[in-house]
Amino acid sequence: MALLPKALEDLIDALTTLPGVGRRSAERYAYYLLRRDSSRTDAIANALQNLHKNVTYCPITFALISKSEELSSLYTDTRRDKSIVAIVEDAFDVVALENTGHFKGTYHVLGGLISPIDGIGPDSLHIDQLLLRIKKDNVTEVILATSASVEGESTALYLQKQLENTSVKLTRLAQGLPIGLDLEYADQITLGKALEGRRLL
Amino acid sequence: MALLPKALEDLIDALTTLPGVGRRSAERYAYYLLRRDSSRTDAIANALQNLHKNVTYCPITFALISKSEELSSLYTDTRRDKSIVAIVEDAFDVVALENTGHFKGTYHVLGGLISPIDGIGPDSLHIDQLLLRIKKDNVTEVILATSASVEGESTALYLQKQLENTSVKLTRLAQGLPIGLDLEYADQITLGKALEGRRLL
Repeated sequence: MALLPKALEDLIDALTTLPGVGRRSAERYAYYLLRRDSSRTDAIANALQNLHKNVTYCPITFALISKSEELSSLYTDTRRDKSIVAIVEDAFDVVALENTGHFKGTYHVLGGLISPIDGIGPDSLHIDQLLLRIKKDNVTEVILATSASVEGESTALYLQKQLENTSVKLTRLAQGLPIGLDLEYADQITLGKALEGRRLL
Repeated sequence: MALLPKALEDLIDALTTLPGVGRRSAERYAYYLLRRDSSRTDAIANALQNLHKNVTYCPITFALISKSEELSSLYTDTRRDKSIVAIVEDAFDVVALENTGHFKGTYHVLGGLISPIDGIGPDSLHIDQLLLRIKKDNVTEVILATSASVEGESTALYLQKQLENTSVKLTRLAQGLPIGLDLEYADQITLGKALEGRRLL
């Protein structure tokens, strides 16, 4: 005998397909939605249905854009310097860098990081388009803004090799102590990088 | 300038209405769904739209049932003893008790616990229907199976007062050490309850 109605079980099953959502969290979400008005459930359902309908990728930078736009406004904006390109893993990294207010160049979203374990090779990423763009836009500096993880480092290394015979200046985001972290709580690798990259005052 | 397409922002906003889901988790869910096939997004959207369409409450026990059923099968099943009623807070508590395989009575879902801080008084709960049912089904035992929290205790106390002039036997789930917990890690209240409720061997 099924203990919960089928429609509720179906929703719980559907919600557990989300990353990091287990049976318990899915039950909690489903039961919360059930106790509230159906308008809230419908709002989420509509937003889900509009996602693939209205969102696409910029064919040059691979940043996320609305289907009503042709290119990312962070690329077409004439105040942005097209000769400087920051390479990031995904679209949310663009938001993170933009929020610093420190960057006036353009972006190139790789769509992932090289990770042989997960079967992601260079061919799965938007690297060919990057090489094309470097020529077309006369790019002078490429900032490797992938994360400081193993995959981020391997991807940066791969791109470095791809670009070593060009005149493009390659830079990498600084690695070191995050602001606010007590020295004694920093891990050895971070501390090692901070020491290695020490600056003259 | 909006950094993310509107449809993506809308979905992130919609997902943050779920309990315990912050901006970061919502972004993670939305981005995950965007990178996968639209069939997955549609599956969740459909399950959401079916929820309120197909799920309702049993008018006697207030357990969750499909709209195609009239009453909860845990009530109509003739092998269940209608004279014993376990009072629980919500529908998932029914599942938890059923999964023990130890209970052959019926259930009554209160739909919450008395909590003056949250504005939930006895009138918001299915208590009148419980009193009716006790008469109609000749209930002999009511098991107060609310949780061992402040609200669970107040609700149990309130029900105890409502039923003190009837011949119904009132019982409460045992409180004490959970299985597998080391004595030294038990909190004082739990340990106090375990001592108070000690049994002769």
